[in-house]
Amino acid sequence: MNRQDGSVRETEEQGVIVIKIGGGAAIGEGEFRNFAADLKELLDAGRSAIVVHGANAAFSQLSRQLDLPPVMVTSSSGRISRYTDSATMDAMLMTYCGKVNKTIVGIMQAAGVDAVGLSGLDGAIASGRRKPMLRGTVGGKARVFRDDHAGTIARVDVRLVRLLLDNGYVPVLTPPALGEEGVPINVDGDKLALALAAEFGAEALLFFSDTPGLLRDIGDEASLVQEIEAASPDAALAAASGRMVVKVEAALAAIERGVGEVVFSDARAEQPVSRALRGEGTVVRRLATSAPSRV
Amino acid sequence: MNRQDGSVRETEEQGVIVIKIGGGAAIGEGEFRNFAADLKELLDAGRSAIVVHGANAAFSQLSRQLDLPPVMVTSSSGRISRYTDSATMDAMLMTYCGKVNKTIVGIMQAAGVDAVGLSGLDGAIASGRRKPMLRGTVGGKARVFRDDHAGTIARVDVRLVRLLLDNGYVPVLTPPALGEEGVPINVDGDKLALALAAEFGAEALLFFSDTPGLLRDIGDEASLVQEIEAASPDAALAAASGRMVVKVEAALAAIERGVGEVVFSDARAEQPVSRALRGEGTVVRRLATSAPSRV
Repeated sequence: MNRQDGSVRETEEQGVIVIKIGGGAAIGEGEFRNFAADLKELLDAGRSAIVVHGANAAFSQLSRQLDLPPVMVTSSSGRISRYTDSATMDAMLMTYCGKVNKTIVGIMQAAGVDAVGLSGLDGAIASGRRKPMLRGTVGGKARVFRDDHAGTIARVDVRLVRLLLDNGYVPVLTPPALGEEGVPINVDGDKLALALAAEFGAEALLFFSDTPGLLRDIGDEASLVQEIEAASPDAALAAASGRMVVKVEAALAAIERGVGEVVFSDARAEQPVSRALRGEGTVVRRLATSAPSRV
Repeated sequence: MNRQDGSVRETEEQGVIVIKIGGGAAIGEGEFRNFAADLKELLDAGRSAIVVHGANAAFSQLSRQLDLPPVMVTSSSGRISRYTDSATMDAMLMTYCGKVNKTIVGIMQAAGVDAVGLSGLDGAIASGRRKPMLRGTVGGKARVFRDDHAGTIARVDVRLVRLLLDNGYVPVLTPPALGEEGVPINVDGDKLALALAAEFGAEALLFFSDTPGLLRDIGDEASLVQEIEAASPDAALAAASGRMVVKVEAALAAIERGVGEVVFSDARAEQPVSRALRGEGTVVRRLATSAPSRV
């Protein structure tokens, strides 16, 4: 734990907290209610927050119901990505921006949090370039897809988010982002949260999923990595694997871009935000002693 | 036509225009592009606008795909309403707030209109009371449904919409609204538009659907009612039938609540908003000569 006395809640000058809630199947209405109640207390104590959420489980379920099986394409460099055609993008809009976004907003409103649900398209909060042509192999066969809706965030416009924060609202954001000609593009929710945290110089960027934090052994919740020192992450990166490497690298990038600390924490806990701010989970930060220029 | 010289576009002091775009199957991306291009010109000329849209065709299509056939319940008073259970409400959120709302926002952004898509839940723009118990008959048999998500708008909070308008954004709103305990409630999009137009004392409330306006004979587009005088609507109401009666009554209520004029116009036209403002369609207003107290 970083702050043994929990003093973060008493600090006078406090920045924005960016809260990323994962879209896993274990994270539903009950968890959203925990977030809402916790957030209400934090807001009453003078904090401000931006929520970013995923909806992957709902998206996968709807894709199955609509008979849109995932087409996984392996590029020549070995990278695997899902082909997002127009119908799949519609399913993404329906679950991310429709069902899950508005369910969270409703639950927050009921808890007294004045939430406003938005996608990256609204107010052009997040925009980028679409790469409609996707080449690679599917099941070993060479294929070319011409209507891919995948993309990356090239630009974040925080005017709308800042306007909402300044007026007491809690923005609740979700992919997709805005591509050229107004076409929605499938971007990574973690990267959306990171981009916003960097733009706001957030005090904390909190990633919540259905694990207690980053685990050395994905099957063993006791193998939690408690802290990663941003100036010397090599040991943590060496111990990490797969998706965890991506997450650690994103956290390091956030610290590099001025975010106070990054915490990977458990979405299934009560008071999840307060716990994460107290250091429960995996905390990534630059210790003052190892970065004297920031003291 | 009310203003033969089209002088409305040159007026110095201009209010808000509320634009309701119907959710019919004939109104899709091509029509949204026409609205966006027209709106861009009107905004550049100093107008401000609130867009409200439906998504009924997309909702019906998804309901069929998800095997959620409409259950129509006839009340003891003879009123027929659709039973909106939880799964049906999810389909509503997915199509209204997800697919259609974000498609419109993307198309508007591409046209240079800084659109922000919201539901009635966001910022508690529209809230009301849910009536979970629905009694009536289905196919002649008495039934009681206990989880209905239908409701009516009891309260409109325009703070968020005003904030967006004051900062150059175009709010793009859609049902549902916010019920008790954060549960979304199925409310009528026309009534949402009417409530907003009344709150803003809108200069004009424009209803767009896939007809040229209100028709005396629904099968004959040449039977267009060109004008309804709000102070003496009896002839128009006598000629109206079914859904048209409801629309005329809504228009009269809007005029009564201070809206400058109501126009029912064609969503399929180019420059649909400019045309409606020039009086193309069915114009409902109170003529100055018949309401001297308002001169």
